[in-house]
Amino acid sequence: MLPLLTRIDHVGIACRDLDAAIGRYEATFGLVVVSLEVNEEQGVREAMMQVGAGRSGVGELGVGYVQLLEPLAADTPVGRFLARRGEGLHHVGYGVADIGRALAAVGGLGVRLVDERPRHGSMGASIAFLHPADLGGVLTELVQAADPA
Amino acid sequence: MLPLLTRIDHVGIACRDLDAAIGRYEATFGLVVVSLEVNEEQGVREAMMQVGAGRSGVGELGVGYVQLLEPLAADTPVGRFLARRGEGLHHVGYGVADIGRALAAVGGLGVRLVDERPRHGSMGASIAFLHPADLGGVLTELVQAADPA
Repeated sequence: MLPLLTRIDHVGIACRDLDAAIGRYEATFGLVVVSLEVNEEQGVREAMMQVGAGRSGVGELGVGYVQLLEPLAADTPVGRFLARRGEGLHHVGYGVADIGRALAAVGGLGVRLVDERPRHGSMGASIAFLHPADLGGVLTELVQAADPA
Repeated sequence: MLPLLTRIDHVGIACRDLDAAIGRYEATFGLVVVSLEVNEEQGVREAMMQVGAGRSGVGELGVGYVQLLEPLAADTPVGRFLARRGEGLHHVGYGVADIGRALAAVGGLGVRLVDERPRHGSMGASIAFLHPADLGGVLTELVQAADPA
């Protein structure tokens, strides 16, 4: 069986104040914001901060991201997460080569898919979430990075 | 300021049944166990499952790990985590080049250190935990990989 996951793409971290969280990762670890986006569909304002020095671009081996997520409203998935559990680790995202095939493979094993079809993620990626109830309580995201421009 | 973190080394996941969790990551994602250890000091039985196909060895760019953690007893950090929050994401570990210098740098910024000195981690690494209260609720581990044999 081929490994489906090519890398740890990012760790998703829920925070109440995105600017404060960015400042903390800059000051403590020297990380740099490489993308700052509002994703209305997911109800978040988010920053990607690069970990590791890659050579050729997004999605390559050796680069991962701290993804900081601030909810746009209390009544969003991340807003409800904060109310229930407080700030902290929210999910993990793994790279895949082909998200359509990955979703078909994982769904075929009986893992419930939060997203039946890929949707838009950070930095032009195609992403989909898998249900934590079938993965030991871990909200798990699959990420197919955007093709290099 | 130089980035202190060289890579996302691993995500630490708390589970009640290590063998079942290993089986889930094997069956769902095709991951393979590369290390299985008991760490009495930390009170866990743990498995490291490799994500990404590295070329030269442990700790290199492009390789990360899913670290599955089963507590040895209820009265351990991971045992208490499971009682309080259930199974799921427990911590994130980042690679550093020199853990002594990294701890001095981070501690000097006022981040509380769970471990004032490095201790033994998985696969011969030197590791130390930083306090989640100073890092937005995220239990954060620094990892200096073992020198290649």
